[in-house]
Amino acid sequence: MKEVNAAIITIGDELLIGQTIDTNSAFIAQELNKIGIWVKRRIAVGDVKEEILKAFNYESSDCEIIIITGGLGPTADDITKPALCEYFKSNLKVNDAALENVRNIFSRMNRPMLESNLKQAEVPHNCQVLQNKRGTAPGMWFEKEGVVYISLPGVPHEMKGMMTDTVLPKLVNTFPLPAVVHKTLLTAGQGESMIAEHIKDFESSLPAYIKLAYLPAYGMVRLRLTGRGVDKQIIKKKVEDYFQQLKQVVEDWLVTDEDTSLEEAIIKILREKKVTLATAESCTGGYIAHLITSIAGSSDVYKGSIISYANEVKQDLLNVSRNTLTEHGAVSKKTVKEMLQCVLQQIKSDYGIATSGIMGPTGGSEAKPVGTVWIAVGNNLGSVAQHFHFRFDRTRNIELTAYAALNMLRKYIMQF
Amino acid sequence: MKEVNAAIITIGDELLIGQTIDTNSAFIAQELNKIGIWVKRRIAVGDVKEEILKAFNYESSDCEIIIITGGLGPTADDITKPALCEYFKSNLKVNDAALENVRNIFSRMNRPMLESNLKQAEVPHNCQVLQNKRGTAPGMWFEKEGVVYISLPGVPHEMKGMMTDTVLPKLVNTFPLPAVVHKTLLTAGQGESMIAEHIKDFESSLPAYIKLAYLPAYGMVRLRLTGRGVDKQIIKKKVEDYFQQLKQVVEDWLVTDEDTSLEEAIIKILREKKVTLATAESCTGGYIAHLITSIAGSSDVYKGSIISYANEVKQDLLNVSRNTLTEHGAVSKKTVKEMLQCVLQQIKSDYGIATSGIMGPTGGSEAKPVGTVWIAVGNNLGSVAQHFHFRFDRTRNIELTAYAALNMLRKYIMQF
Repeated sequence: MKEVNAAIITIGDELLIGQTIDTNSAFIAQELNKIGIWVKRRIAVGDVKEEILKAFNYESSDCEIIIITGGLGPTADDITKPALCEYFKSNLKVNDAALENVRNIFSRMNRPMLESNLKQAEVPHNCQVLQNKRGTAPGMWFEKEGVVYISLPGVPHEMKGMMTDTVLPKLVNTFPLPAVVHKTLLTAGQGESMIAEHIKDFESSLPAYIKLAYLPAYGMVRLRLTGRGVDKQIIKKKVEDYFQQLKQVVEDWLVTDEDTSLEEAIIKILREKKVTLATAESCTGGYIAHLITSIAGSSDVYKGSIISYANEVKQDLLNVSRNTLTEHGAVSKKTVKEMLQCVLQQIKSDYGIATSGIMGPTGGSEAKPVGTVWIAVGNNLGSVAQHFHFRFDRTRNIELTAYAALNMLRKYIMQF
Repeated sequence: MKEVNAAIITIGDELLIGQTIDTNSAFIAQELNKIGIWVKRRIAVGDVKEEILKAFNYESSDCEIIIITGGLGPTADDITKPALCEYFKSNLKVNDAALENVRNIFSRMNRPMLESNLKQAEVPHNCQVLQNKRGTAPGMWFEKEGVVYISLPGVPHEMKGMMTDTVLPKLVNTFPLPAVVHKTLLTAGQGESMIAEHIKDFESSLPAYIKLAYLPAYGMVRLRLTGRGVDKQIIKKKVEDYFQQLKQVVEDWLVTDEDTSLEEAIIKILREKKVTLATAESCTGGYIAHLITSIAGSSDVYKGSIISYANEVKQDLLNVSRNTLTEHGAVSKKTVKEMLQCVLQQIKSDYGIATSGIMGPTGGSEAKPVGTVWIAVGNNLGSVAQHFHFRFDRTRNIELTAYAALNMLRKYIMQF
């Protein structure tokens, strides 16, 4: 089966001055991969018509699908539509459904509509319009000399919604694509190179149509098997067989055999065991609570948190003794143990997490350098505390502490 | 002065399957812009030699500077150096300083060194070697037919260090560059198109060498003026003059006239007024605390939070009366007001924020649909509460609620 190649073109000066980090391309690439389309290149160009046209020409030389995001806003610097008109020898005309959509959105928001907003309903006359349920800019689908061009707004949730609702199903219908089956598991506690060494026999036993990918994130490693072929049922069966083998080989570090995040895996465990969780966060400053509450339905199992950023809050709300703070310091085993005990009582939850550390860039000392962290997890039957030393910047130290805490909790709960 | 154009090429399959979000390009683009180099394109290609060579040829057709990151690791799929050798008709030879560096790093880490690590000290014989103080892979600088090619490792902190220490100063010495001055302000409470309408006279009064950019984020809009010219002092003065005019035109919505985030702006205000903040978060689930505590130095002004995800935590820890919860519901003006009053007392802070809402996808009702939010902000002299209705997915509803709350707090504090 011939490989179908795609290119992603993102448009906007903000990408070229480094103002915006391009998360759209990563999402689009992931979704295209899942349906068996290989992304050959990603390219970002500015709000310059000639540059956009040059990119269309270049990408269409060896790709069958070109996905374009950005440059569809209401302001004058949005240049994608004029470029599309020139490239497809087209003229703008109002699309009635898109106009209706713009009117509805403004009437729902109860805001006055400007001429520039109405202009968003204009599209090149020779495109298929992809309606946008989440915003005012419609998407466009063109075909020219065997290449499909899809233009989407750059606003991430609008783009994502349109990809999922419309673009992906339409691509599956338009192109003969291979059957692609992914199976992913999550490991924690072992680095990428050590896992690679440990599973090298398994890896070399894989047939050519099944690939293994290592996807490291936050001190964990996700392993993904991807099978490609003609018959979906056969591929699925084969990938499943190898996946079972892989699970056994990495069982010591296995967190979950589903393609979920650690926080989702924990919510699932808590729900299955019909137990609740509370957190007492100092150095993570609410990030653990945020990770958990970002998951829909977390309110079934998560009760709340006391964030004791200031030491007096540790004393007042978490009953950490003045003695502990002066003798052992806020970043100590004794402090996190006391925080944990108190939050379990105060919030009346079955399980708890407590964190305290120095995230940097300042606040470190010789005895407790930046990156020093204590974490405690437990329930009313007991608790464990562990010391960590992370060596990154503030943001990454916070992230690594949160995931280390969640993984400690997971291991602790699994005993019961 | 002739414009100097650059292209950024990032190399790695992980970028094409959407596994990695490319933050390196944004950093490089920002830094190049600051010294007056315009990034014309960013391109990501896979670990395929032909694709890399094709990108070199394409980018060198209209750019004088090509910065390449990634593909310099010790494993077999790292293909950048073979591609460079072919393109520059070169052979690999060991660079003594780079070898010494690799040896030092492994001896410091007390780890055994593999053959593949030693190979990292090999570089094409006709490049200038850029030493890497932070890792094992050296950088390379080539010149060919008037174009400079710079190859850097993809590990972010290594790449950033080398850019700052070596590449940027060397570029400034190599190319005649214009003076570039940016000034940015942040607005809240008005959409992009409405601002554009409101400031169109100002915008059309700008001289050709000063550009205005709209950068929307989380219900706010950042406006940036960029001036370019020969004489830095003159440009700076001109940009400053127009910036003062712009500030006046948007003064009703002005959050800060610095290029900072809303959370940074608030921490600055709190620090200047020598006051403290606490939060009581329900629907935002710790996200406000996380935004604030992500900023280094926030511990000076931020004391902590009570996250009352479960209603009983609202009663137990935030003294919201049972009566309020049954009569008005958890998502009500009365609930957030009571949450606010309690957290100000419990955490003994000068200012407070309280949030409660329904973030979705479930939990909505006819009277209180998904996206319904109440926010209260205040101090011991009073408080204000406001109702919002956000219409996005869970993640975005949480983000918008957090930024709406921070902006309410900012406006409230400014009265005192």
